[in-house]
Amino acid sequence: MSSTLPSPQRPESFSSPDLAPKLHLYTVGTPNGYKPSILLEELHAAYPDSKELVYDFIPLSFSEKDQKKPEFLAINPNGRIPALVDENVGGGHNIWESASILLWLIEQYDKDHKFSFTDAKLRADTLSWIFFAHGGVGPMQGQANHFYRYAPEQIPYGIKRYQEETLRLYSVLEDQLKKPESKGFLVGGKYSVADINVFPWVRGHAWAGLDIEPYPHVAKWLETIEARPAVYKGLGVPTRGKKLSKEEEDKKAEESRKNFGFGK
Amino acid sequence: MSSTLPSPQRPESFSSPDLAPKLHLYTVGTPNGYKPSILLEELHAAYPDSKELVYDFIPLSFSEKDQKKPEFLAINPNGRIPALVDENVGGGHNIWESASILLWLIEQYDKDHKFSFTDAKLRADTLSWIFFAHGGVGPMQGQANHFYRYAPEQIPYGIKRYQEETLRLYSVLEDQLKKPESKGFLVGGKYSVADINVFPWVRGHAWAGLDIEPYPHVAKWLETIEARPAVYKGLGVPTRGKKLSKEEEDKKAEESRKNFGFGK
Repeated sequence: MSSTLPSPQRPESFSSPDLAPKLHLYTVGTPNGYKPSILLEELHAAYPDSKELVYDFIPLSFSEKDQKKPEFLAINPNGRIPALVDENVGGGHNIWESASILLWLIEQYDKDHKFSFTDAKLRADTLSWIFFAHGGVGPMQGQANHFYRYAPEQIPYGIKRYQEETLRLYSVLEDQLKKPESKGFLVGGKYSVADINVFPWVRGHAWAGLDIEPYPHVAKWLETIEARPAVYKGLGVPTRGKKLSKEEEDKKAEESRKNFGFGK
Repeated sequence: MSSTLPSPQRPESFSSPDLAPKLHLYTVGTPNGYKPSILLEELHAAYPDSKELVYDFIPLSFSEKDQKKPEFLAINPNGRIPALVDENVGGGHNIWESASILLWLIEQYDKDHKFSFTDAKLRADTLSWIFFAHGGVGPMQGQANHFYRYAPEQIPYGIKRYQEETLRLYSVLEDQLKKPESKGFLVGGKYSVADINVFPWVRGHAWAGLDIEPYPHVAKWLETIEARPAVYKGLGVPTRGKKLSKEEEDKKAEESRKNFGFGK
């Protein structure tokens, strides 16, 4: 096992590979990992001339326990992905926790508020929905994943508890998205960082053994967001996952289980 | 079971009971519930002349399922406590999720940044630690509480999983608080909303069956914060809990279990 982290890589999206990246994203292809790469790609598409948005990414490996190596803990003391190092600000700065990274990127780089809001009430709504996802959908669906896919013991109580709670949270999203004034997005009638923050989790519903069909407005929202070119690109960082068959997913789960060390 | 919510009550801290409260806090005496009442009391102590900070609170009852009644769901679509209605802003506004409420109160009322920061890096650090708590300490300790106190089945795997993860998160707090430059607080060497956001959870460690002694800097931090008069007042909203014996805690757990409907 190597004591150092993998080398940085450049995303395909940047047509000026000579520009030195000042943003460095430490990530893995998980729902939390996809949040910042999607927003980085959206910002790049919206502000194509901004050199500040040129980024590279460091594809961490859970099986190598990269996220617990001293080099990474110096960036994120919690030892979880994703984390961002921003060298555009004097002295550089480390930002960690997926939602914290999104809010940093918005504040620093979304100057025209294309994915955010200036109005105080809409800013508050954005935060309410972001915390709803960060404290609810993420951890509860994460636990559903654990008991459904990874746990070494089969514990029906745990599977049921977290699958049901995740579905309840989806129903809250459904009720919001079905309001005509929502125009199919969570806040202010437009696609924003509030949607990006929860999209990769809901997109991964099948991994938690969940079905999205009972939530047609959520299903439509997923489809709308997934059709965005920047989202497609963001989902390719660090590597593009492919649609798997049931058998392939089970095989992947078996391999994940071997590498799985919760919180270690 | 009543179909309406309880009547608003006034906190003891406000010496001008004739002023009409424009802030209405919907809460229960839980870690998430205490976050906004602590910050409201801190802000009141720091800005004693601000009439905007006069608040009342609506003490919701879980056993009455107040948090799932239409009147409350119109305020917080997720049906969880706490929530805040702010009538100081034109047209009023509903803010939900405990951390979202804290950030709203800071942005609107902490004009001198007594519990927050102006520097962009320190603002980012505040968010990183807030999301760390909102996605980590809160939900994981909440699950520890569930498996240790409420679950109808005794599931050792669940108890161990969430107790261990909560302790790991405490160790991350410990490492931060032990740094000399922290001066015993999470961000920027001063007591701030980042501390208030996680304090009530760590304070409730015993309810999750956890011991704080292995984390001496966390224990000192708890003691320092708990000694603040505003924190004492905030912990009295909606009602002041008393220190319970092991037997009393077990009895309380038994009663809670009866009322417990996860996510329903």
